[in-house]
Amino acid sequence: MKDVYAGRRDALRRDMRRRGLDALLVSRDVNRFYLSGFELHDTQHNESSGRLVITGDGRDWLATDSRYAEAAARLWEPERVFIYKDDVRDIASLLRRCGCLVGIEARGVSLAFARALGGEGGLFLQAADGLVERLRNVKGPEEIAALSASFALNHKTLAWLERDLSAGRLAPGLREADLAWSIERFFRENGASELAFPVIAAAGGNSALPHATPGAGRLEAEASLLIDVGCRVEDYCSDQTRTFWMGEKSGPAYSRFARVYELVRDARQAALAMMRPGVTGRDAYAAARAVLEKAGEAQAFTHGLGHGVGLETHEAPSLNFRNERPLEAGMVVTVEPGLYYPDWGGVRLEYTVLVEEDGVRVL
Amino acid sequence: MKDVYAGRRDALRRDMRRRGLDALLVSRDVNRFYLSGFELHDTQHNESSGRLVITGDGRDWLATDSRYAEAAARLWEPERVFIYKDDVRDIASLLRRCGCLVGIEARGVSLAFARALGGEGGLFLQAADGLVERLRNVKGPEEIAALSASFALNHKTLAWLERDLSAGRLAPGLREADLAWSIERFFRENGASELAFPVIAAAGGNSALPHATPGAGRLEAEASLLIDVGCRVEDYCSDQTRTFWMGEKSGPAYSRFARVYELVRDARQAALAMMRPGVTGRDAYAAARAVLEKAGEAQAFTHGLGHGVGLETHEAPSLNFRNERPLEAGMVVTVEPGLYYPDWGGVRLEYTVLVEEDGVRVL
Repeated sequence: MKDVYAGRRDALRRDMRRRGLDALLVSRDVNRFYLSGFELHDTQHNESSGRLVITGDGRDWLATDSRYAEAAARLWEPERVFIYKDDVRDIASLLRRCGCLVGIEARGVSLAFARALGGEGGLFLQAADGLVERLRNVKGPEEIAALSASFALNHKTLAWLERDLSAGRLAPGLREADLAWSIERFFRENGASELAFPVIAAAGGNSALPHATPGAGRLEAEASLLIDVGCRVEDYCSDQTRTFWMGEKSGPAYSRFARVYELVRDARQAALAMMRPGVTGRDAYAAARAVLEKAGEAQAFTHGLGHGVGLETHEAPSLNFRNERPLEAGMVVTVEPGLYYPDWGGVRLEYTVLVEEDGVRVL
Repeated sequence: MKDVYAGRRDALRRDMRRRGLDALLVSRDVNRFYLSGFELHDTQHNESSGRLVITGDGRDWLATDSRYAEAAARLWEPERVFIYKDDVRDIASLLRRCGCLVGIEARGVSLAFARALGGEGGLFLQAADGLVERLRNVKGPEEIAALSASFALNHKTLAWLERDLSAGRLAPGLREADLAWSIERFFRENGASELAFPVIAAAGGNSALPHATPGAGRLEAEASLLIDVGCRVEDYCSDQTRTFWMGEKSGPAYSRFARVYELVRDARQAALAMMRPGVTGRDAYAAARAVLEKAGEAQAFTHGLGHGVGLETHEAPSLNFRNERPLEAGMVVTVEPGLYYPDWGGVRLEYTVLVEEDGVRVL
């Protein structure tokens, strides 16, 4: 992987040159990890495990504190590991050695850090957001392999869940929160390092909330169950949603569910069928929405169609009416239309797909 | 709890008046939760679930987006819930209605957010960090009750662990990562909503790393095992460390362990014995360090003595040589001296204590 990280830093360096930057200070934990393999997570929002200094000449620095010295030494040339005591003052002195015009991630550093760094003098700081995120949009083969492993476990988990629901081992009366823990436990005991995001397990009417938190609500008979889950395997996230029907597949309640379900499925399929390189996020959204509009139900589709998935569960690109950038081969995005009725419940169906030369492939 | 949150906001308002602030924009998720009960965690570092606007006249706002409208309505007067579409532009217009001089948390907002907010015009923004954190230093009775519940589960977990180690159900050969998962599972199945921080389970020589990540290393016979764990119960964190000896308590390896263990224990007890209101963080650190210095081992004590614990695992106040502020009754801090020898391993022993009028009480 060391060569993969070095290749990513070289690609970044080309973009930095175009911007005239002498150096880029990388502070966002996920960007730092993408470029170095060093610590995917900062431990708390306000505690950094370290930062990278990407330089014009390729002599990049990994700056961290003594707690992480050994972890850094395993990944990085020892003479380019920089151990700081005073985060701001020491990093400013390091940056001054790397040039004058330094890019920083304005969305990835606090106002306090940026002000203190600027106050150290001798540097011209420029907001340079999105350079690393843009590279991360298109996944390399090693990333697609990791994503495939993560989605394989997600499929396995959903298959287990569907089996246990059918067999009545998970049955009406079970608390949403207990179901969520069963799912988390299955993920963790089958190879996930963590969840990609908290399990959404919304029974009956709760499924009308796109971001429902599993609570004391219980699985109901003759009602829907919306499950939106993802895990992290080999550092990469997965994300999938299914909506199940609990109970007999007959009667008026089921009929309404089945109608909504088919409509959402048709919307999903319409988007999948037309997505390929060159199609914009807005086009994909419009294709799904058109199906719902034709049925007169588009007002109940209250969110975007999808988002990128990779080292983060939510990353670029978005599939919504604002995104006019074309899809490219190697992008990985969710396709997740949903219909929500506050007095009834909701149905969301989500696949995540890899954009390939001639279409998309469901992961 | 609504009254408790309102009381905290009133205390904050008094501090704001002293600073001449018309309003304070609260963005840090944990501060927002402390003042309102709304969403303890933002879902990703770069995605806010909402912000509070604390005003001089007590007509405070909870600002969020439509995804959280229902959660907000459960906690807040409906006419003071502000639903934004464009985070920056809409919040700027809300702030302009609340006055001119607005405090923001410079450590809690990104440079990009602060610049965009300032660019909206009509506001004078002032960095006002630490106002909420200072209130959080001293815990109220409802917080002490929640912390006690969290530590009760931590004690239960460590007692279970010690029993299973003694009985050989957790035995040499077990992978650190599997032990860490067993501990996490115990926490979750006994009432924790999540871990307070990733389990540290460091066998043998790995215990020389104060922040070891559980890996493929395995529990060893005739060696030490350092366990540093915490959970979240009723929203509050716990944090405790024990170091166990695996195997027969005899022989030269055990003798060295026992000597180091006793020294660390004596250092911990020396700090506990002298801590009370008025004693500074520096004094407490010095009391523990003096014991290690007398034994000629202080160079192996490589970190501070402790930190505050509450809604965050790491919060103010710190017990280290820099903190000259006196302890106050109601503060909750860890006391965790350790000795680390790279060629051998480490011993750390950690209690968390509540500062009371006449001393400290172990939680």
